Amino acid sequence: MKLTNEQIKEIKEQQSQQNNTKRVTAPELEKILYEAIPILDHGFIRVVDYMGDDSSIVQAARVSYGKGTKKVSTDEGLIKYLMRHWHSTPFEMCEIKYHIKLPIFIARQWIRHRTANVNEYSARYSILDKEFYLPELKNLAAQSQSNRQGRGDVLQGEQAKKVLNLLKNDAEQTYSNYETMLNERYDGSVINEKEIGLARELARMNLTLNTYTQWYWKTDLLNLMNFLRLRADHHAQYEIRAYAEVMLDTLKKWVPITYGAFMDYRVGGTEVSSKGKIILQKLIKGEKVSIDESGLSKREWNELMDSFGLNDRLIK
Amino acid sequence: MKLTNEQIKEIKEQQSQQNNTKRVTAPELEKILYEAIPILDHGFIRVVDYMGDDSSIVQAARVSYGKGTKKVSTDEGLIKYLMRHWHSTPFEMCEIKYHIKLPIFIARQWIRHRTANVNEYSARYSILDKEFYLPELKNLAAQSQSNRQGRGDVLQGEQAKKVLNLLKNDAEQTYSNYETMLNERYDGSVINEKEIGLARELARMNLTLNTYTQWYWKTDLLNLMNFLRLRADHHAQYEIRAYAEVMLDTLKKWVPITYGAFMDYRVGGTEVSSKGKIILQKLIKGEKVSIDESGLSKREWNELMDSFGLNDRLIK
Amino acid sequence: MKLTNEQIKEIKEQQSQQNNTKRVTAPELEKILYEAIPILDHGFIRVVDYMGDDSSIVQAARVSYGKGTKKVSTDEGLIKYLMRHWHSTPFEMCEIKYHIKLPIFIARQWIRHRTANVNEYSARYSILDKEFYLPELKNLAAQSQSNRQGRGDVLQGEQAKKVLNLLKNDAEQTYSNYETMLNERYDGSVINEKEIGLARELARMNLTLNTYTQWYWKTDLLNLMNFLRLRADHHAQYEIRAYAEVMLDTLKKWVPITYGAFMDYRVGGTEVSSKGKIILQKLIKGEKVSIDESGLSKREWNELMDSFGLNDRLIK
Amino acid sequence: MKLTNEQIKEIKEQQSQQNNTKRVTAPELEKILYEAIPILDHGFIRVVDYMGDDSSIVQAARVSYGKGTKKVSTDEGLIKYLMRHWHSTPFEMCEIKYHIKLPIFIARQWIRHRTANVNEYSARYSILDKEFYLPELKNLAAQSQSNRQGRGDVLQGEQAKKVLNLLKNDAEQTYSNYETMLNERYDGSVINEKEIGLARELARMNLTLNTYTQWYWKTDLLNLMNFLRLRADHHAQYEIRAYAEVMLDTLKKWVPITYGAFMDYRVGGTEVSSKGKIILQKLIKGEKVSIDESGLSKREWNELMDSFGLNDRLIK
Repeated sequence: MKLTNEQIKEIKEQQSQQNNTKRVTAPELEKILYEAIPILDHGFIRVVDYMGDDSSIVQAARVSYGKGTKKVSTDEGLIKYLMRHWHSTPFEMCEIKYHIKLPIFIARQWIRHRTANVNEYSARYSILDKEFYLPELKNLAAQSQSNRQGRGDVLQGEQAKKVLNLLKNDAEQTYSNYETMLNERYDGSVINEKEIGLARELARMNLTLNTYTQWYWKTDLLNLMNFLRLRADHHAQYEIRAYAEVMLDTLKKWVPITYGAFMDYRVGGTEVSSKGKIILQKLIKGEKVSIDESGLSKREWNELMDSFGLNDRLIK
Repeated sequence: MKLTNEQIKEIKEQQSQQNNTKRVTAPELEKILYEAIPILDHGFIRVVDYMGDDSSIVQAARVSYGKGTKKVSTDEGLIKYLMRHWHSTPFEMCEIKYHIKLPIFIARQWIRHRTANVNEYSARYSILDKEFYLPELKNLAAQSQSNRQGRGDVLQGEQAKKVLNLLKNDAEQTYSNYETMLNERYDGSVINEKEIGLARELARMNLTLNTYTQWYWKTDLLNLMNFLRLRADHHAQYEIRAYAEVMLDTLKKWVPITYGAFMDYRVGGTEVSSKGKIILQKLIKGEKVSIDESGLSKREWNELMDSFGLNDRLIK
Repeated sequence: MKLTNEQIKEIKEQQSQQNNTKRVTAPELEKILYEAIPILDHGFIRVVDYMGDDSSIVQAARVSYGKGTKKVSTDEGLIKYLMRHWHSTPFEMCEIKYHIKLPIFIARQWIRHRTANVNEYSARYSILDKEFYLPELKNLAAQSQSNRQGRGDVLQGEQAKKVLNLLKNDAEQTYSNYETMLNERYDGSVINEKEIGLARELARMNLTLNTYTQWYWKTDLLNLMNFLRLRADHHAQYEIRAYAEVMLDTLKKWVPITYGAFMDYRVGGTEVSSKGKIILQKLIKGEKVSIDESGLSKREWNELMDSFGLNDRLIK
Repeated sequence: MKLTNEQIKEIKEQQSQQNNTKRVTAPELEKILYEAIPILDHGFIRVVDYMGDDSSIVQAARVSYGKGTKKVSTDEGLIKYLMRHWHSTPFEMCEIKYHIKLPIFIARQWIRHRTANVNEYSARYSILDKEFYLPELKNLAAQSQSNRQGRGDVLQGEQAKKVLNLLKNDAEQTYSNYETMLNERYDGSVINEKEIGLARELARMNLTLNTYTQWYWKTDLLNLMNFLRLRADHHAQYEIRAYAEVMLDTLKKWVPITYGAFMDYRVGGTEVSSKGKIILQKLIKGEKVSIDESGLSKREWNELMDSFGLNDRLIK
């Protein structure tokens, strides 16, 4: 990641602010506010604003449940209770805003989470940066043979080099032709003074999906956790997971108690179906179980056994 | 409005906070943060948190439109442009949270605005306060004869007194029976040691709709303006308008430039249909207009004339 | 439940429709379309429109996953897979619309589910029906002593009678005074020809929360299941559960395959935290477990044991 | 637009359905149900399901306003009233679902409308079609010199040819390299039996933004109109407008009365700010107006004059 001089100056100015407020603050998050945390080759995430902290969740819950919450002695106990029982509204009382630079094909996955506010850099108005995502060799995975959505082994040697070359050359060539069509280079210089360029809103269609874009993305704590639960999961595509993992760290700095409960009940937890429950109950009693009587499909059976570390019961 | 000792203490503690932050602040709003602003007889509104200010809107817009916004020299010019052309997403970048005490029948109107986060005091868990809305005499209006949804003249003399007495007595009696059914008074004292009380979630059904409830209500700036446009309008019920007007004032303290644009383009502005446009164009040219050739209904015609102060053209 | 002649006529007309369509239909749901299914003493639910069926979910999923779904041989297998892995968007492709009559205090719980469309009868415009919810004796439960939100034993004898009388009398008296203030009875007759009535938007505040209201409520299948998961649960208040249970039955008639997967994975399923997983793993291996080393609170421990039927391990 | 044999067969099967239903139907819309209406070079729109018609709006409104709506004699009068006064919830009672094939750079604009349900073809699972958008010569516009977001004159002669060649060659080359990286052609044939291909989720990043994707897109009538108001507007990019215009036609077939009101009050209507109102009032009275005393910026002034056809008052 390389920031422009303009960006470096903007971040410095933002970070030098010293304001007084009666609002609650999150001291650990303040320390990294506005900082550009590098992700992938050219991407970054910056926390640019936030509202509330762990105490805001507690405060909202205590308004809702009134005297009913007095028995729960600690804030941590209450937050864990709320998380465990899927209470949602108290977690909506906190809000966070990120500035994110990311490849377009990842932006397209990301935007499917509709419960957020977004201001994206518009390629109708302005020319996109000349920056493309090129995976590191260790992330250049083959298509999984068993899972249509997953990755298999890492590509090796000549094939890996070939792939990287294709990605690099195609991105550079299409960007160069983007400039040609615009009759303008990113630095603003005109290519041919006698011609006018193609409209930006058209020329952009020539760019490849690994071109970087950027946006401001704002969401509440509940929806942030929904996002992270899906996108920090090992089933998520590596490239979006790279962002989610950095965001998990900002979550920890922002609302440490909520973060703890989230890791225990959501990220580390699992779900068991009614049929799966019967199997587990039998196993606990030391009874015999078999897939045939379970009503589970082979896939379901294996997901259950895998989830509880019962590897010797996996069926091939 | 009378605050409990507990509330007074809580507000004092909140207001005595002195935190440092690198976030932007809204100095005028900070001055009234946490303060309980009285509304109606027992209601109030408190701003309890916020995120962003006018500059946050500008910042988000500049990310979206990139170099395209550089020509607009001032923040005010840009915000006015965004408001005029119904750009929505930059206004979603600011967030505000209120603590509100309000009668239940108003809460039911309010909650129809779905794009907000809410934590309401739960009468399943806790006993509601013994506080009911009783209108001032000047607000005790008769049903409008011309408009099924509106108010007519104010009730006078004996009838007004009778109405107020009915409201007061019924609220007090139903609340007293609420306590009887609960076998518990609001202060926590048990009425009959030998009995157990009815479940709170059932007993509450005996309360009247003017009983006060309270909630935390959080929304973004765009949705706040949508709310205020409808609820600060003279067609809105007086009781909800009383809240909206106080909120308009908090809007002004929070984002003064946006407030100005909102008053000009939304609150003070009007819409003209395609048929209405033709009428206005003719009037400007000094041509004759008549309802018969306009394609407008009588009601529509009068709404148009009224909106442009052409009272001599109103049709009875 | 007693329908008005007007309602009976409307339902008859709606049910006599015989339209041809190229859209998919849900034959079992068609059989009960428009029918008023009684709930509580005066409430009802009617399915008044719907869009899509089980095949619509499959169709949407096959568009998303393209050739990737071809391996899953059956519709049922695919729907179960989607449900198990929390795929949400295919279930959003179906929509249902209900006409519901329900007490106001239940409507207030219900409306907290924001992801639905609602048109409620407006007491600003029109006079509410003279109908109040009065619980059956078997549902007149005492406040739970252990759970602030729950119900305990059913009230007995004199106390039960007293409660019912209070509810009945207060509802009738406040409704009668509502008419007095309006200077109009529900049947439209004027009470005192010499007076004008109080505005409807004000008079309504005198009604008690067990007064019935009605609305059209429309939502997609995903959000319907979210609603039912919470409201058909035994923690939900009995009165809203009565509605949810009837809706579960309409779900079965509408999308039988989805219904089956929902009952298995959501309603009958359970969640286990990361700490809970360790306990279960130990139990399966026949190892000793104790709350002290588990990191679980007593409440959490009991919830886990209860969920897997390990009653002998419950801690008092 | 060329449909695959599979698609042709699917459409034929869908259109041959003859189902009975008690639901309301929209006969004109039924006639084109499932039909693929061509847009741009390879795109299409198909209406694949719907719920409700004009009468559903009326029905919902009559539930809300009760006896209050009886005075409005006709359905058309009521729908016009609702539209004029921005009543929103009755229009949410209708729902429509489209199957759309569109270039990715348009899909990215489209998805910004968050209040819809979407199932998009996933390039993580499956290989994208070899189809790219190439504008017709008449749509190959230059960047506007006056408006950063707009289009100017159409490119001519050699420059136009050059642009088209660049777009075509880059799309074909990047697609061909996409196949090379996947080690698989769209028809499923493997390129090099000795190699495994790059993961689909990675290879897709090499495609250009004019590659076609497809999705199911479902929304309610209110949000459809919000979408069309913005996207059928002459400020919208031509390529998305092409879709919006076809959708306007489906709106007309579906809810003809609502369509009429929408065209009059929204599409053909205009907004006037409070300052603009004063200018129009003066013009109607025959008074002199000048930009200096108006409080309007030059841009605002011109927008107002343009909107009312007062071209002689435009300021250059």
